[in-house]
Amino acid sequence: MKETVINLLNEVELTEPIFIEALPGIGHVGKLVAEHIIHELEATKFAELYSPSFPPQVFVGEKGIIEPMKNEFYYLKSAGEDKKDYIILIGNTQGLSAEGQYNICGAILDFVEKYGVKNIYTLGGLGTGQQVDKVQVLGAATSEELADMLEENNVKMRSADGGIIGASGLILGLAISRGIDGVCLMGETPGYFIDADASKAVLIALTKILNLEVDVAKLEERAEETRKMISKAQQMEQDMVDRSHIAPGEEDLRYIG
Amino acid sequence: MKETVINLLNEVELTEPIFIEALPGIGHVGKLVAEHIIHELEATKFAELYSPSFPPQVFVGEKGIIEPMKNEFYYLKSAGEDKKDYIILIGNTQGLSAEGQYNICGAILDFVEKYGVKNIYTLGGLGTGQQVDKVQVLGAATSEELADMLEENNVKMRSADGGIIGASGLILGLAISRGIDGVCLMGETPGYFIDADASKAVLIALTKILNLEVDVAKLEERAEETRKMISKAQQMEQDMVDRSHIAPGEEDLRYIG
Amino acid sequence: MKETVINLLNEVELTEPIFIEALPGIGHVGKLVAEHIIHELEATKFAELYSPSFPPQVFVGEKGIIEPMKNEFYYLKSAGEDKKDYIILIGNTQGLSAEGQYNICGAILDFVEKYGVKNIYTLGGLGTGQQVDKVQVLGAATSEELADMLEENNVKMRSADGGIIGASGLILGLAISRGIDGVCLMGETPGYFIDADASKAVLIALTKILNLEVDVAKLEERAEETRKMISKAQQMEQDMVDRSHIAPGEEDLRYIG
Amino acid sequence: MKETVINLLNEVELTEPIFIEALPGIGHVGKLVAEHIIHELEATKFAELYSPSFPPQVFVGEKGIIEPMKNEFYYLKSAGEDKKDYIILIGNTQGLSAEGQYNICGAILDFVEKYGVKNIYTLGGLGTGQQVDKVQVLGAATSEELADMLEENNVKMRSADGGIIGASGLILGLAISRGIDGVCLMGETPGYFIDADASKAVLIALTKILNLEVDVAKLEERAEETRKMISKAQQMEQDMVDRSHIAPGEEDLRYIG
Repeated sequence: MKETVINLLNEVELTEPIFIEALPGIGHVGKLVAEHIIHELEATKFAELYSPSFPPQVFVGEKGIIEPMKNEFYYLKSAGEDKKDYIILIGNTQGLSAEGQYNICGAILDFVEKYGVKNIYTLGGLGTGQQVDKVQVLGAATSEELADMLEENNVKMRSADGGIIGASGLILGLAISRGIDGVCLMGETPGYFIDADASKAVLIALTKILNLEVDVAKLEERAEETRKMISKAQQMEQDMVDRSHIAPGEEDLRYIG
Repeated sequence: MKETVINLLNEVELTEPIFIEALPGIGHVGKLVAEHIIHELEATKFAELYSPSFPPQVFVGEKGIIEPMKNEFYYLKSAGEDKKDYIILIGNTQGLSAEGQYNICGAILDFVEKYGVKNIYTLGGLGTGQQVDKVQVLGAATSEELADMLEENNVKMRSADGGIIGASGLILGLAISRGIDGVCLMGETPGYFIDADASKAVLIALTKILNLEVDVAKLEERAEETRKMISKAQQMEQDMVDRSHIAPGEEDLRYIG
Repeated sequence: MKETVINLLNEVELTEPIFIEALPGIGHVGKLVAEHIIHELEATKFAELYSPSFPPQVFVGEKGIIEPMKNEFYYLKSAGEDKKDYIILIGNTQGLSAEGQYNICGAILDFVEKYGVKNIYTLGGLGTGQQVDKVQVLGAATSEELADMLEENNVKMRSADGGIIGASGLILGLAISRGIDGVCLMGETPGYFIDADASKAVLIALTKILNLEVDVAKLEERAEETRKMISKAQQMEQDMVDRSHIAPGEEDLRYIG
Repeated sequence: MKETVINLLNEVELTEPIFIEALPGIGHVGKLVAEHIIHELEATKFAELYSPSFPPQVFVGEKGIIEPMKNEFYYLKSAGEDKKDYIILIGNTQGLSAEGQYNICGAILDFVEKYGVKNIYTLGGLGTGQQVDKVQVLGAATSEELADMLEENNVKMRSADGGIIGASGLILGLAISRGIDGVCLMGETPGYFIDADASKAVLIALTKILNLEVDVAKLEERAEETRKMISKAQQMEQDMVDRSHIAPGEEDLRYIG
C-alpha cells in the first residue's frame, strides 16, 4: 500500500451533509461522542479509509480478533429536528507523519466534498494537564459568523492561545481554502484517560447546535463503565508504553549474528 | 535504491503454502523459532528483500564479514505429517518509518500471494517488562474460526489489550483486505535479551498446530548457548546504544570548519 | 495536498526586488522585524504558500478564529531612499522534515527568482541560552563582498562556529547554486521568549544597510506589549508542550477497543 | 530541490579507481584522514553532491562565509608506488533519514561505478565511550579475501558485535549486490571530540595497505591544532545542542498570534 485509499461500501445520496470528524485524540473525547451518536441514531457505515501513514501495527480487540488501523465513514439521513444529512468519521488512529496527515486529511476532504459537504464539525479534547471539576466546552471556528453562532450556543471561544494539533485542526485548516466552513468543539480533559465527562459536555453542546436528540443518559452509563475500566486501562497503557520503547529500529541494534 | 526490491534466487512451485513471518522483534522470539525450523527441516532460501526503508547501516558478522540489511524467504515442500508447503520469512531488520513498513509488508504480501498463500502465521514476543516464570503463548487472529482453532491448541487469546506493533501485526492487518487469514503467536518475554525460553514455547505451539515434527532439544542447546552469550550480548547492546546516540544528524551539529 | 503550492493573489511587477525572509525561529526575532516593516511601510500581500510539510495543525487566533499554517509574501515598491522594490516573506511556521524544508525553500526561491531577485536578506535570532545585556547583531554572508559590506555597517561576522538551522540558513545555501547572493542577520537572544530587543537591533541594522526609514519607536511600543505578555505566553507555551506530549502516534497506544 | 544531484565540475578519465569514502562521523576520524590525503597528495575536486535529505541548514565558515551542506568528490591519478587512480569522497554532512541515506549512497555508487570502481575503502571511527590509550584500527570487509588482506596488514577484524551505521556501512552494504568489494577501517575513539589520534592510526593503516606515501607528521601538527581547539569546540558544540533544542517544529508551538 503506497497511497491512502478509501473503499466505498455502499452507494449513498446525501443532501449537503454536515461532516463530523471525531478521530482519536486527547482523552478520546471526540471519538466517544461520535461513537455514541452513531450507536444511538443508528448511522450506517458506507466507506473505510486505509493509509500507509497510519502507525505500522494492528489492534487486538475482543477475543483476540485483529483490527487493522482504519478510519470509517458513517452516514445519517434526515436526522434530528432539522432533517439534515450527516457524514460521521471515526477510526482507531490518525496519520503519523506531517506529510501523512496532510495526505489523509486531504483525501478525507476530497471524499466528503463529493457529497456536497459545506459545514464541518471537528470534535476533540483540550488537555488541561490537571483535574477538571466542571468541563467547559471551548470552540474555534473558520469564520466570525460561526464564532458568533457558537457563542450563542454557550460555547466559549478559545482566545489566541496555541493550536489544534492533528486531524481536528488540519481538516478545518485545509477546508478554508476549499471554501468550506467549520468549527472545532473541544471538551476540557485532564488528558490522562478516556474521558466520558468531557465527551458528555461536547455531546450536549453539539446536539444543541445541530438540533439532534440523543439520549445523554446512555453516555452516562458508558461513562460509568469507562470509569471502571480506567484502572485496568491505565495498567495496559503503561504496558503499551513499556513495550513500545522497543521500536523496530532500536530493536535492530540488539541484533546478534 | 529507491524502492523495495525482492530478488528471486530460485524458481519454485508451491501448493497453497503456509506463510510464516518471523522478522526480528522483542526478544528475537519469532526469529529464533523460524531459524530453528529452517535449520532442522533444511528449508531452502529462494528470495531476498532489500529496502531503502531499512536502517541505513550494515551488520558485522563472524570474522568481520559485512552483512547487508535484508529479509530472506525460505521454502519447505511437503513438510510434516500434513505434507504442506511453507514459505518462511526471516531477516536481520524491519522497516524504520511507518510508510516504509507499509511499503515493505505490502511487497511481502504481493510476493507470497503469487505462490497461493491463504494462511499466515506471524511469530513474535510479548514484552512483559519483568521476569517470566512460565512462558505463556498468547494468540491473536483475523477470524473467529482461527481464534477457536488456537484455543483448541491451548493458545490463550489476548483480550482487547493493545496492539501488535511492526511486521507481525501489520502483515496480518494488510492480509485481511486481501482475503487472507492468519494468526499471530506471541511468547511472553521480559524483552531485555534474546529469549530462547519464549522461542521454545512458541515453537512447541506452532509445530503442534501445523503437525510439524521439529527437535525441540536442539533449541534447548541453542538456548543454553544463547544464555551464555547474554552477559556478553548485554554489554554489546549497551555499546550499540552508546554509539547510536551519535546519529548522523546530531553529529553534524559538531562540525567545525 | 501532496505538494507545496504558492497561490498568487495579485499580479505585480517588480524590478530586481530585494528578498527578505523572516519565518518564525528562535525568539521570533526575524518575524517581529518583518511584521513591523510590513506594517510601517504598508507592504501588500500578494501570495501565500501552503505545504504538506508544515506541522499538521492550525493556530487559534483572536476570538477563536482558526488560522491555517502558511507563509505569506508581501511586496514594497520604490521603498526608502534607494527607491528599491522588496519581497518580504513571513509566516506562522516552517517545514518539519529535512526533505520538506528543502522542498519549501526551493519553491520559495523558484517563486522569487521569477521577479528578478538578486539579493537576499534572511533574519533570525542567535540563541545564547542566557540573558543578553546588549544585543549584538551577527552576520553571515554568501560572499566576501557581502561580508565586507556587513562589517562596514557594523555587523560583526560570525566566525566558524556552527550552523544556521532552518529556512534562514537553507534559503541562502540553496541560493548559492542559483547565483544569488545574500546575508543572514542574527540578533542575539536568550531564545526563551518573543524577543523585541533582539528584533529592534536587527531592525536598526537592516534599515541602515537598506537605507529604509522605519519608525523604531513603534517597535519599542510593541516590545513593551510583548514584554507584558511574556508571563502569560510562558504559561501558554508550557500548556502547549504538555499537550503536545500526546502526539497522535503515542495517543494510539492508549486505544481501548 | 527534490532529488539528490551530482554536479560534475571536470571531465576526468580514471582507470579502475579505488574509492575512498570519508563522510563525517564519530570523532570525524575518516574525514580528517581523507582531508589530509587530499591536501598532501594534491587531489583535485571534480564533482559535488547535494541532497534534500541533508540537514536543512548551512554552516558558517571562516569570516562568516556560508557553506552549503554538500559532499565533494576528489580524484588522484597514478598515486603512490602502485600508480593507482583514486576517487575520494568527503563532505560536511550525511543524509538524515533512512530513505535519504539509501538514496544518497545509491547515487554515490551509481556515480563512482561509471569510473570503473571495483574496490571501496570506507573510513570511520569506532566509539568506545571512554578514553583510548592506544588506538586500535578495526576492520570489516565484504569478503573473506579482503578480511585476510586486512589481517595481513595488522588490522584486527571486528567480531560479530554490532553494526556500522551511516554511509561507511551502507555504501559497502549496497556495493555487495553490485559485485563491488570493499572494507571499512575504523579507528577507536572516545567519540566526544575531533580525534586526530584515531585519524593518524587509520591513515597509517590505509597508506600501508594502499602503498601510498603520505607525511604523517603533518597530521601530527594538525592534531596538535585540533587538540588546542577542543575546549573551544566543546563549548561550541554545547551551544549548538542548546540551540538545536528549539527545532522549527517545536518552535511553532510557541506561536502567539
